[in-house]
Amino acid sequence: MEKISIINAAKHTDERVKIGVWLSNKRSSGKIAFLQLRDGTATFQGVALKQELGADRFAQLVDLAQETSLWVTGTIHADTRSKFGYELAISDFEIVGTSHDYPITPKEHGIDFLLDHRHLWLRSSKPNAIMRIRNEVIRAVYEFFNDRDFIKVDAPILTGSAPEGTTELFQTDYFGQDAYLSQSGQLYGEAAAMAFGKIFTFGPTFRAEKSKTRRHLTEFWQLEPEMAWMHQAESLEVQEQLVAYLVQAVIDHCTNELAVLDRDVATLKKYTKLPFPRISYDDAITLLQQNGFDVDWGVDFGSPEETFLAEHFDQPVFVLNYPKAIKAFYMQAHPTRDDVVIAADLLAPEGYGEIIGGSERSTDYDYLKQRLLASGQDLGNYDWYLDLRKYGAVPHSGFGMGLERFLAWITLQDHVRETIPFPRMLHRLYP
Amino acid sequence: MEKISIINAAKHTDERVKIGVWLSNKRSSGKIAFLQLRDGTATFQGVALKQELGADRFAQLVDLAQETSLWVTGTIHADTRSKFGYELAISDFEIVGTSHDYPITPKEHGIDFLLDHRHLWLRSSKPNAIMRIRNEVIRAVYEFFNDRDFIKVDAPILTGSAPEGTTELFQTDYFGQDAYLSQSGQLYGEAAAMAFGKIFTFGPTFRAEKSKTRRHLTEFWQLEPEMAWMHQAESLEVQEQLVAYLVQAVIDHCTNELAVLDRDVATLKKYTKLPFPRISYDDAITLLQQNGFDVDWGVDFGSPEETFLAEHFDQPVFVLNYPKAIKAFYMQAHPTRDDVVIAADLLAPEGYGEIIGGSERSTDYDYLKQRLLASGQDLGNYDWYLDLRKYGAVPHSGFGMGLERFLAWITLQDHVRETIPFPRMLHRLYP
Repeated sequence: MEKISIINAAKHTDERVKIGVWLSNKRSSGKIAFLQLRDGTATFQGVALKQELGADRFAQLVDLAQETSLWVTGTIHADTRSKFGYELAISDFEIVGTSHDYPITPKEHGIDFLLDHRHLWLRSSKPNAIMRIRNEVIRAVYEFFNDRDFIKVDAPILTGSAPEGTTELFQTDYFGQDAYLSQSGQLYGEAAAMAFGKIFTFGPTFRAEKSKTRRHLTEFWQLEPEMAWMHQAESLEVQEQLVAYLVQAVIDHCTNELAVLDRDVATLKKYTKLPFPRISYDDAITLLQQNGFDVDWGVDFGSPEETFLAEHFDQPVFVLNYPKAIKAFYMQAHPTRDDVVIAADLLAPEGYGEIIGGSERSTDYDYLKQRLLASGQDLGNYDWYLDLRKYGAVPHSGFGMGLERFLAWITLQDHVRETIPFPRMLHRLYP
Repeated sequence: MEKISIINAAKHTDERVKIGVWLSNKRSSGKIAFLQLRDGTATFQGVALKQELGADRFAQLVDLAQETSLWVTGTIHADTRSKFGYELAISDFEIVGTSHDYPITPKEHGIDFLLDHRHLWLRSSKPNAIMRIRNEVIRAVYEFFNDRDFIKVDAPILTGSAPEGTTELFQTDYFGQDAYLSQSGQLYGEAAAMAFGKIFTFGPTFRAEKSKTRRHLTEFWQLEPEMAWMHQAESLEVQEQLVAYLVQAVIDHCTNELAVLDRDVATLKKYTKLPFPRISYDDAITLLQQNGFDVDWGVDFGSPEETFLAEHFDQPVFVLNYPKAIKAFYMQAHPTRDDVVIAADLLAPEGYGEIIGGSERSTDYDYLKQRLLASGQDLGNYDWYLDLRKYGAVPHSGFGMGLERFLAWITLQDHVRETIPFPRMLHRLYP
């Protein structure tokens, strides 16, 4: 008899199979029991008859506590009444691991309680669905970049130099030297782009921010592609193609998960239509002012402004050419204006705000040096980075996408903490 | 005219194209110049004729320094004399970024000098080939596990509890609390396996070891699959299938890179033949003793013993059932013997030693508690981990593979530092 996973039930219709499962819920009429069986790949219903199992075995089965693990054997049947489409007629079972007083019951729990039990909460249908979508997005990221001749390059986490004036770095002793946890792999990505053409980093990054907003984690995964010989206009095309590709992948491969989360597929489908609209920062300011926002040219957008702009277009929208004063030192100067840089943020609709930030990178050694000095940096920390402008500098562009912010949008979660297996926040380092 | 990458030259034979390149080497006869052109995706030869370019432009071209970046235009021709198979007949060029006194010349450099210039050294053919193989292995890891219904789960890097008695952890202040950089995602992987069935983690892990061996980095990438409802025998099959799959992927997709590294493909091909041999720890001790090794039952193997065992079988070999005293607390007890646990290491031939370590995990709450107490641990740190044995424990197994050790073997490098873009070691935190 074949040992199968629930996810593959369709391939075994009307076959006798054996499945290792956890009992997630049950109801019984006295003669027939309906068991919700979960094996990690999916959840479906097992049906047990007193007549078939015998009174003792039937009583034992309906008595099992939530999260008991067991081997069940039986026959897979198509079941048009269930969303999953298949169920198991249980002919036998064997208890593997008992369970008593499982803390997460079908009743409502507070968020702190659930986060304290994250190691168990991941078994529940909603977190489970979000993590399966996370997995699909990660899979599709690799597929997208592998298909386009990008090389994955792992930037280091431990770095020896800290940008001046930031208090947002985690610090550690590195054999007597100070080391810091990386906030971004970008500068290393630029070095790698000069060696490999098109690269992406994709790994954990860290921010020791004391902020407690629904958009902040202290540890989060960031995707940072960097492309040599590429100007910003081409980079924007890569960005929108990536977003459309990831959304389509989730639509194609996560039907059940989206249903669990009540995420409307028609809404998602809109985000696969390219190109995404583009608006200059200047025009965005005007548009906001015309709609009653009290914003002056030069400010960075807050959540209300970002929400308005993306809702206005009902699509993710690129805002182009931000003021130089509010953007990072490495961004390419505008060819004809001194007050803006060649940078763009991609703002997501439905109130999710910035999901991608990117720019063309300056290739001008003297300009970069002057920008670093103006922001009070120690040039010695950037020796190797400036080298990239000494030996065959080329136009290059790149961007960063926070995986959790992207996922919060796709899965319609209020807080990014829901989109990472074990979130790390201001007061959260457990489990 | 189309802008292409060198790697796609074959698709543009006899077409006029434009390519952004760096000049990596050149020679000239006065009338004809042969330029080694690198664009990050590959390197090939450009041929320029004085007659075609004119005397001034030709002189300018042959005068360019190493690592100058330029746009070249010309026609792709098949070239049976070169390994790459294609070359470019240059009709025009445009200098993009100048270069002067590029520090890495074709002469020999010391390893410290090269590591100090790692941001540039990655452009050289050998590191470039190794990183392209690293990229292929990463790609194939995702493909292997995605195809087999594994879910990627990201274990946290920052953790609040440190195992007792270890000095090998990097520590940081986490808003007034002590936090540590993770050495392994396994315990979190076990929690995730109970939620998702089969999972893998794949991310950076950290060891603050003062050792300066050719097998140690302080920051390294680790692949850690964990599989619910799976005993050790099945886990060993997954492990050997994975290794064979990764080796085959490199053979199939990295022909040029293996040639650059002088890596013999016939040797690699041997490692795709399954099953790999298995030998018990007991028999391994006897075999070693018979061959003049001074080893007693109970010791852990050193490099000479591992090298001998893998060479003896001329294949990667699993050593099974290690002494309990030298293995981790979480390993499953042997069903009939008290002195060994259900663990196996996979040893690679050619002197590379352990590339995978794995075990079946104990499902016994009391046994684990006793093992933790016996090793002086604070049970409070393991509350959540022990929970996995309270609520529907199931047989499960997993393993860990260090990406850099695996790559050192596949690419035949003496030191793991060659196999990661920006290595971190005892005295190395730059660039």
